[in-house]
Amino acid sequence: MTGPHPMVEIHRGGFVESRHSGHAVVCDSGGTIVEAWGDPDAVILPRSAAKMLQALPLVASGAARAAGLGPRQLALACASHQGAPLHVAEVGTWLERLGLRAEDLRCGPEPSRDKTLRFEMIRTGQRPGRIHNNCSGKHTGFLTLARHLGTGPDYVAPEHPVQRACRAHFEDMTGAPSPGFGIDGCSAPNFATTVAGLARAMARMAGAAGRAGAAEQASAALVEAMIAHPDLVAGEGRACTLLMRAASEPVAIKTGAEGVFVAILPQRGLGLALKIADGATRASECAVAALLVRLGVLEAGHPDVARFLNPPIRNWDGQVTGEIRTADRFG
Amino acid sequence: MTGPHPMVEIHRGGFVESRHSGHAVVCDSGGTIVEAWGDPDAVILPRSAAKMLQALPLVASGAARAAGLGPRQLALACASHQGAPLHVAEVGTWLERLGLRAEDLRCGPEPSRDKTLRFEMIRTGQRPGRIHNNCSGKHTGFLTLARHLGTGPDYVAPEHPVQRACRAHFEDMTGAPSPGFGIDGCSAPNFATTVAGLARAMARMAGAAGRAGAAEQASAALVEAMIAHPDLVAGEGRACTLLMRAASEPVAIKTGAEGVFVAILPQRGLGLALKIADGATRASECAVAALLVRLGVLEAGHPDVARFLNPPIRNWDGQVTGEIRTADRFG
Repeated sequence: MTGPHPMVEIHRGGFVESRHSGHAVVCDSGGTIVEAWGDPDAVILPRSAAKMLQALPLVASGAARAAGLGPRQLALACASHQGAPLHVAEVGTWLERLGLRAEDLRCGPEPSRDKTLRFEMIRTGQRPGRIHNNCSGKHTGFLTLARHLGTGPDYVAPEHPVQRACRAHFEDMTGAPSPGFGIDGCSAPNFATTVAGLARAMARMAGAAGRAGAAEQASAALVEAMIAHPDLVAGEGRACTLLMRAASEPVAIKTGAEGVFVAILPQRGLGLALKIADGATRASECAVAALLVRLGVLEAGHPDVARFLNPPIRNWDGQVTGEIRTADRFG
Repeated sequence: MTGPHPMVEIHRGGFVESRHSGHAVVCDSGGTIVEAWGDPDAVILPRSAAKMLQALPLVASGAARAAGLGPRQLALACASHQGAPLHVAEVGTWLERLGLRAEDLRCGPEPSRDKTLRFEMIRTGQRPGRIHNNCSGKHTGFLTLARHLGTGPDYVAPEHPVQRACRAHFEDMTGAPSPGFGIDGCSAPNFATTVAGLARAMARMAGAAGRAGAAEQASAALVEAMIAHPDLVAGEGRACTLLMRAASEPVAIKTGAEGVFVAILPQRGLGLALKIADGATRASECAVAALLVRLGVLEAGHPDVARFLNPPIRNWDGQVTGEIRTADRFG
């Protein structure tokens, strides 16, 4: 077993202050590993980087079509949105159309990550709601599927038909049985796979357009929706949104908690997955930018790439005191 | 050169989701390494774990006595306080006694980490000030020394007499020339040393009481002040404060940014320093608790120890989804 590969360094005053290592795999749509760093067989919880896979049964089952969902709802089903007014309004409308309320969501209440709204809610004494949770789009997708299947309200229970469908699609796309699951920040099961398995699933999504089969057609629809609506996938200022917008070709990019990132490159039929071993987001953002620069999808000099690839570290007085950059021989 | 030693794991659903490694050294007051993990010679920036060393010239020069400072001010000079009303009021009074204002501080404005005050300031439209910066006590100490020395207001410039005095004390205590410095979050220089050098300095502080010499007497006064006022060193709910209170014997415990922790054990004449290689605070808190349990200063079963040594990870709905714990063969 290979250890994690050095990927990202924190520099301050000429010293490497901290270091992040990880595992990364680029896979083609035939399932072959094109390039890898660290251990491709490292077992990980993909966290929110699995949202596109968790949204597959919503589309493949016909539930999305039956509910009249468009690309905006599909993008939100794959999103870790920041609970900005845009996201809250869109999810709210979707819930209304289902005749449901925010209280029907099983994701817990999370303060909005949109600073203006968060401060406004503090000023006016409003408590964070379930609809502000970054996963509220995924959960509204789960509710849509649960209704379509005619099943009960506890859609996050691992044995609920919604989660059984998620697991079946997850294992189909990663190409291997999942060794188990953890409970995610939003209370839904999060199925484990290897870094290679996650890259394989992303590559299959990348090569799905125009292919036959329910999973392929659902994959293509979700990838298209994400690429069409980067603002719904995360939000202003966030890595997924800015990197998708900065890309020189259509690409879907998605973060997951604890240092996970994935990318889907439809024009090349490639999928990418990475996990920072220590779980740091500052490192996963830098590493995914580096790998997408390496693949020729992002330009290192683009300001919205540089802010993740090589950001300055500023102190409380705004002074630049250091920088984040890739380790030698990575990216 | 030895790599970092596995220290802390993040568990979720039966999987090790993330892993943290680091370097740690326990040193006796003669400067001998008693026990070490990882690389004792790893060069680090101690960040706020150096504050006791940065406060030495304030006391050793006679500036503290001339300004009539007591243990409360000395504890604040060593503190990374959370900008709670208690800390803001104490630093404010100290500044007033010097005839100075918060604007004379060179640390940047930082939002209070005390949630009640932070929300209150948002509600009433107050902007965070320099006095709320977690380093405002250290900086008021710098100002006190600058005035005593009759030197200019730019006390964070590396060539200012205040910082030259800090460097001289730092090198004396660590027992080696510093290879350089980085600029800290509060704009002051932060001198580099090895993990062993930092542990050596802490051990010398631990053995200082009753010994002759200005540095020894200053060390003893600062350690005594910290131990007498754990609430001023950090604040309610914070690791330094709670672990110092939970200890079965007097001990000074201090965190630094990017995964640094130190401890001073006067009854045993021991000093401890650790650095998590990736800079994670969740890991440095767990690791310092583990090492102090190992040394017999903390009890693993004490609730205020367990909350750092082996905390549950809860999701947005309050559900326990995992835990932080020490790696096998550590602690």
